[in-house]
Amino acid sequence: MNSDSRHTMDRREFIHGAAAGAAALAFTRSGFAAEGPDKQAVLAQVPKLHNECVERLQEWIKLPSIAAENRGYPEGPNYMANLAREAGFQHAEVVPTSGKSGVFATLNANAKKTLAVYFMYDVKQFNPAEWSSPPLAAAIVEKPGLGRAVVGRGAVNSKGPESAFLGALRAFRAAKSPLPVNLVLICEGEEEIASPHFPQIVQRADIQAALKKCDGIVIPSAAQALDGTVEVTLGSKGVVELELVSSGEHWGRGPKHDIHSSLEAAVDSPTWRLVKALNTLVGPDGHTPAVEGFGAKALPLTPAQKQMIAVAIKRRSEAETMQQLSIGHWVHDAGWLESQELLESKPTINIEGLVAGYTGPGGKTILPYRAVAKIDMRIVPNMTAAGTLALLKQHLIKQGFPDIEVNMSGGYNPTTTSPDSDLVKAQLAVYRASGIEPILWPRSPGSWPGYIFTEPPLSLAAGQFGLGHGNGAHAPNEYYLIDSTNPKIQGMDGAVRSHIEFLFAMA
Amino acid sequence: MNSDSRHTMDRREFIHGAAAGAAALAFTRSGFAAEGPDKQAVLAQVPKLHNECVERLQEWIKLPSIAAENRGYPEGPNYMANLAREAGFQHAEVVPTSGKSGVFATLNANAKKTLAVYFMYDVKQFNPAEWSSPPLAAAIVEKPGLGRAVVGRGAVNSKGPESAFLGALRAFRAAKSPLPVNLVLICEGEEEIASPHFPQIVQRADIQAALKKCDGIVIPSAAQALDGTVEVTLGSKGVVELELVSSGEHWGRGPKHDIHSSLEAAVDSPTWRLVKALNTLVGPDGHTPAVEGFGAKALPLTPAQKQMIAVAIKRRSEAETMQQLSIGHWVHDAGWLESQELLESKPTINIEGLVAGYTGPGGKTILPYRAVAKIDMRIVPNMTAAGTLALLKQHLIKQGFPDIEVNMSGGYNPTTTSPDSDLVKAQLAVYRASGIEPILWPRSPGSWPGYIFTEPPLSLAAGQFGLGHGNGAHAPNEYYLIDSTNPKIQGMDGAVRSHIEFLFAMA
Repeated sequence: MNSDSRHTMDRREFIHGAAAGAAALAFTRSGFAAEGPDKQAVLAQVPKLHNECVERLQEWIKLPSIAAENRGYPEGPNYMANLAREAGFQHAEVVPTSGKSGVFATLNANAKKTLAVYFMYDVKQFNPAEWSSPPLAAAIVEKPGLGRAVVGRGAVNSKGPESAFLGALRAFRAAKSPLPVNLVLICEGEEEIASPHFPQIVQRADIQAALKKCDGIVIPSAAQALDGTVEVTLGSKGVVELELVSSGEHWGRGPKHDIHSSLEAAVDSPTWRLVKALNTLVGPDGHTPAVEGFGAKALPLTPAQKQMIAVAIKRRSEAETMQQLSIGHWVHDAGWLESQELLESKPTINIEGLVAGYTGPGGKTILPYRAVAKIDMRIVPNMTAAGTLALLKQHLIKQGFPDIEVNMSGGYNPTTTSPDSDLVKAQLAVYRASGIEPILWPRSPGSWPGYIFTEPPLSLAAGQFGLGHGNGAHAPNEYYLIDSTNPKIQGMDGAVRSHIEFLFAMA
Repeated sequence: MNSDSRHTMDRREFIHGAAAGAAALAFTRSGFAAEGPDKQAVLAQVPKLHNECVERLQEWIKLPSIAAENRGYPEGPNYMANLAREAGFQHAEVVPTSGKSGVFATLNANAKKTLAVYFMYDVKQFNPAEWSSPPLAAAIVEKPGLGRAVVGRGAVNSKGPESAFLGALRAFRAAKSPLPVNLVLICEGEEEIASPHFPQIVQRADIQAALKKCDGIVIPSAAQALDGTVEVTLGSKGVVELELVSSGEHWGRGPKHDIHSSLEAAVDSPTWRLVKALNTLVGPDGHTPAVEGFGAKALPLTPAQKQMIAVAIKRRSEAETMQQLSIGHWVHDAGWLESQELLESKPTINIEGLVAGYTGPGGKTILPYRAVAKIDMRIVPNMTAAGTLALLKQHLIKQGFPDIEVNMSGGYNPTTTSPDSDLVKAQLAVYRASGIEPILWPRSPGSWPGYIFTEPPLSLAAGQFGLGHGNGAHAPNEYYLIDSTNPKIQGMDGAVRSHIEFLFAMA
């Protein structure tokens, strides 16, 4: 832990720690559970805890953990474990893996039911030059039409929603009310690099045992769109992230170090080879995956899922969506319905990045010895990450590119959760009680490592939940709404309240 | 000029300037020319000037001018003009262009013949992390089997050989001997970005007039290979450097800023589009240009040129060449003769660099809004840079990629010089007098902006010349041999002497 973050921790503990520690002790040793949870008393605490909740979020944003840059470790997991302890988890430990550590915590409320909660403490890389407010300053900024928002990396993905969930737990403690459910917290620090070591956390015997007792797993989220609507997603696509590397060394042709570009007249180019290999991965439209067998096992949308999409898109604006995405056309000039069916159903092969030779300003007359394509493939049920990776490797060999290295950096299978699960029913009930009719959505086109929960042996229902609003995940000027001036959208307090209601609904 | 380089200049002027200035004055105002040049007296000065010559080269390396990075301007041209003045040019001026300035200088020796000299003061970009000795330190390093060499960016390309040429002029001055020929110096500072503004220098009326009086133009070079052999090249390939840019903005499809990679299911990818466009530029072998009409006008090698290559390759080691290039195979598994014929005769399309989306460590799940390929095309007689660029543009349109931007950053036509020109005859004579039978080579596979000299209206013979040795142009650990311990190779003094002999041979 560097001196800056230690200072931050010390300051926070000085302000909040002494009293909170005493309260936690009282909670765990006395018999509040016997008195039973008191929802109104808990909800009444929310406005009182507002400032503390916001300040904790700001402090957390100031400590970024970025696995791709090896930044903020081991401060990140230590800080996370402390956040859990201070929110009332009696047990909270850092869980080492071959990569970055995770966190495992349990809160025993002597309740009948147990709910699992998924957190990530890591955040996406950022380029401060692209931000209008420094990405680690966690500044409170007035957003016209919305209210006051905190701007910073991780604000909405996912420290803001997670802070709202922790705020709910602190409200129980402040009200001296036990929780209506027990909690099992599973947290990782490599979500943004596709969770390469997450199974090591979840599959630890005692953690598996704790999870087996759970009735579902919730991921705190800022679910409200600008118009206040929320989406309940019934799963997510899986992903495989990898690098395709063409090199003189591995190919045995072309140079093993950069040479002068004039020599290309008589020497093979690993960069051209990468272009030729990439060209075989998608069809002539520059879009449709052309890897043999890719998506052959993909489950098509069911009539029920198609119906969900048809209902959902009537509640969204195509024009606004296209504007947000800065696009003028969907692929193949698809219409609104078709575009969203594609988004939900199609497995993809995307190029995240290309790197070869000279990448700076101007030119440099070299024949590069190495070229890299950074790829992500999104997969749907019943595809698997391992199976899709194998198809890609077979394809490259069959197409005559056995020398192209396929270096998988992470990935996981898709997830599916039934709309009839207790978890989804509780979500729907809370939203509807808040006057919101949620949009049911077959699956998120993005990915999270939930397969480890939704597949056997755990087979848990899993879903994102939380009122509140934010935007800019993976982009500049990421924000999370704190004090809403928009009657359709909840700020931090509304988000906290929604988690309190959800815990009662799960019970 | 920054304070560091001003300091350098001041120190050098303090050491050398006072006496040298007086000598130059004496030279221009007194009547040495009437006494006639004295070759032996001039050659006798060479060892005495050795240390000064090396120190000046080291100082020059410490002041890099890199057009692609806008580094070292206007210090570079000012320094260059001063070097010319101190070497005896009576007139030396910085010549502004729309880009980086050049230098024009004249030395009138009242001789019958006038020789033009081409210099570049700019150097290639470098990455200090790849160097074993800092690229701007200009350290003197012992090279086993060679002797003491100066290591630094620009050491061989081209400040070392140019310093040897300037050293020859200073030897004339030290010997109080006039030159046997008049000189016209043309120098540019954008060679490494393909000389986009060089015509503005050469085509200035007074500079054209000065060049029209010349009997040829020489480019100082370190011509000796490790085995002491030298090559006399009879021209060079031309080049077109450009960027191919695919973007959502210009295409009108795909996003106009980076969006989350999951959206690729429903949104076009400018990066895939670039891959598809690049794929059309070369054939299935990932090598042979497939741009329609590309190379259709290329002059094939003449029987005389083929004969030159057949003779030349017997004097070179294929194994050593392949080792230097870090290759195990020539393209198409060509043999030694065929590989060199390809190198001499084939126009090429090479990828210098690829840049799209996320290029750092690990991955980042984005769909990039923009992708760039940095391309250089090498061309042979009778292809032209403008014509080749036009073919590429037509090809992209015809292949259905009118949206791919083609941004040419520089380039020039190929050059040809007759083996029967005075310039080549003088080169051959000096080499042979030094006991070296030169290898005649149809053309350099690299490029320089000599077309502006070799094409009408100037139609000058042009060629590289100079004993001496170096390596690592455009690569790490570039060096130029200073004190040779290898009897086959000349160090700085031998290089200086070769230029003195050459000036007499030209006369």
